[in-house]
Amino acid sequence: MAQDFGFKLLATDGAARLGEIATARGSVRTPAFMPVGTQATVKGVHPAAVRATGADILLGNTYHLMLRPGAERIATLGGLHKFMNWPHPILTDSGGFQVMSLSELRKLDESGVTFRSHIDGAMVALSPERAIEIQNLLGSDIVMQLDECLKLPATRAEMERAMRLSLRWAERCKRAFEGAAPGRALFGIVQGGDDIALRTESARSLIGIGFPGYAIGGLAVGEPQEVMLRVVDEVAPALPADKPRYLMGVGTPEDLLEAVGRGIDMFDCVLPTRNGRHGLAFTRHGTVNLRNARHADDPRPLDEASPHEATRIYSRAYLHHLIRANEMLGSILLSEINLAYYQELMAGMRVAIRERGFAGFDAATREMWERGDIPLRP
Amino acid sequence: MAQDFGFKLLATDGAARLGEIATARGSVRTPAFMPVGTQATVKGVHPAAVRATGADILLGNTYHLMLRPGAERIATLGGLHKFMNWPHPILTDSGGFQVMSLSELRKLDESGVTFRSHIDGAMVALSPERAIEIQNLLGSDIVMQLDECLKLPATRAEMERAMRLSLRWAERCKRAFEGAAPGRALFGIVQGGDDIALRTESARSLIGIGFPGYAIGGLAVGEPQEVMLRVVDEVAPALPADKPRYLMGVGTPEDLLEAVGRGIDMFDCVLPTRNGRHGLAFTRHGTVNLRNARHADDPRPLDEASPHEATRIYSRAYLHHLIRANEMLGSILLSEINLAYYQELMAGMRVAIRERGFAGFDAATREMWERGDIPLRP
Repeated sequence: MAQDFGFKLLATDGAARLGEIATARGSVRTPAFMPVGTQATVKGVHPAAVRATGADILLGNTYHLMLRPGAERIATLGGLHKFMNWPHPILTDSGGFQVMSLSELRKLDESGVTFRSHIDGAMVALSPERAIEIQNLLGSDIVMQLDECLKLPATRAEMERAMRLSLRWAERCKRAFEGAAPGRALFGIVQGGDDIALRTESARSLIGIGFPGYAIGGLAVGEPQEVMLRVVDEVAPALPADKPRYLMGVGTPEDLLEAVGRGIDMFDCVLPTRNGRHGLAFTRHGTVNLRNARHADDPRPLDEASPHEATRIYSRAYLHHLIRANEMLGSILLSEINLAYYQELMAGMRVAIRERGFAGFDAATREMWERGDIPLRP
Repeated sequence: MAQDFGFKLLATDGAARLGEIATARGSVRTPAFMPVGTQATVKGVHPAAVRATGADILLGNTYHLMLRPGAERIATLGGLHKFMNWPHPILTDSGGFQVMSLSELRKLDESGVTFRSHIDGAMVALSPERAIEIQNLLGSDIVMQLDECLKLPATRAEMERAMRLSLRWAERCKRAFEGAAPGRALFGIVQGGDDIALRTESARSLIGIGFPGYAIGGLAVGEPQEVMLRVVDEVAPALPADKPRYLMGVGTPEDLLEAVGRGIDMFDCVLPTRNGRHGLAFTRHGTVNLRNARHADDPRPLDEASPHEATRIYSRAYLHHLIRANEMLGSILLSEINLAYYQELMAGMRVAIRERGFAGFDAATREMWERGDIPLRP
């Protein structure tokens, strides 16, 4: 019989939380970073290599998958896990965020949103019920409600309207998700822009509806980090302690430290792979731009103490060469190296919380980043 | 002490030969297919994954590496093997072929060739002595002489002039290579275009100079397959039986069957990776174009009996999706799948020669190709 979906809070240190999410497809250690597999692939990285970096769970994008190759097609082929050869947990977003950011000709009303596909121009409708149906067809382990996600800044009236619509959609999603197989879960999404009163009302109302996990959405949309953290500061404590909390679309390594310190359990972000493709490496010594000519003769690896082999064995000179020569292997290796660093950071935070040493880990990690990369001695 | 360079002929079946090349960095089973690592990487494939397909040896391109990142730089960084994390044998070409095909403003005379770099426009000189020096700096296990490589068709006078110049350069390369460390070797290159008399003269003269291996160059430059095979038919038997024979830049799976059947031992070609990037798969059932819409719902792998995992586990529907969505993983997987098929073909030929069954293997392989891919039953 499939494992029931659940969350165990294993330890806390200040607001930071160590936990474990159980799903039918295995457990997820939290705080967790979810690599983004937009089009049924983490860009440029074999699924086995994603797993080897320490990822317990991936994120898939409903918007992209519904347009190509199509949710019904993936279901006929045995579901998203089989399709992309990732037998471990998958969370899918609802498509709402990307309808807003990627498609044109949106018509949004109470029933849902109609938009023009960025791939073939076809008109496509997405309702709360259809968002759940698609995610069920994909076979996601964690399903997200459809919400309306605004760009910030926005007027209070706009934020309030979108928040209330998202709440009504949350109820419809919950109804549509009823009867789902055990071991899977639907999360509600707190909206309300940068208005704390709206955010608090959204959180309270979602808790009233009742979900096995809660996300904070509508952030990481261009606002300053302090705005994001202020929202997290207010919203996280308002969420139930015994349910996982997911900060959507975040972020930089520093964002992760800040948000875990405020009680967030789950993250997703394209930065490690997107920046990797552009020659930027995330390391214990901060960000390293491998396109820079100073690496051309540097025989040192990015971090000889990394638990990840590629980070230890390839020289900066080689990575620099690959990036300069536009070789795919440069994008591949730096995507893997960055995913591995993100997972190393999450693992470090998990150990620190268990040992009640999160503040010290946070300070030591920042000190290493700020000291920066050690240049090669000439 | 390093293993001396050498070649053992282990079995023959008709003109087809089974052998083994010994180098300081390990042995190469022949007939051998060498994946092409132009810019110190087999495009899109981890070196460990290249190895896992069964490759004993890679080819590196002197022309590209001398321009970027530079041979002296690679030497300072510990040589090409260390730079690209491939500790096994490497053969490098001399740069001559690509000077002709990629660079502009060539000035060719007795001393060598001067050309404009396609990367930064700098004027660069390449002489027989410099070609050897560069390959020594790279640390190649098998070094190729500098030759002049003509496009076909060409006049007999042009072919004769280029062939004789290549012979004089062969002598200069041999002198420049004297004193190289044991376990490494310099190969001469037979030229002469599609003129059998010139080819025979070139082979005889090179044998007079004396090399531990011989290549047939100046083919696979746009001529019909029958022209190439006619040259191989005449040249291969004129080469010493106890030395390896390398047909440069060849070819399709069928070219490999034809040429092994005529006594060739070594090949290199960009086709498996280049075609893979464009969505074409080489399989036991012939070539499969994964861009084609007929694969969109096909749950079958490319070949469930393949010794290569990716060929067995990813569905055609998934590969089709990745290629249509321009996802890097599509290029990566098909490059690996094609390299694995080439190595499977070479391994099959080696077993067949050992068992004196090459003709049967050849016929069975062609029959499978000609029968073609089996469409999905609706």
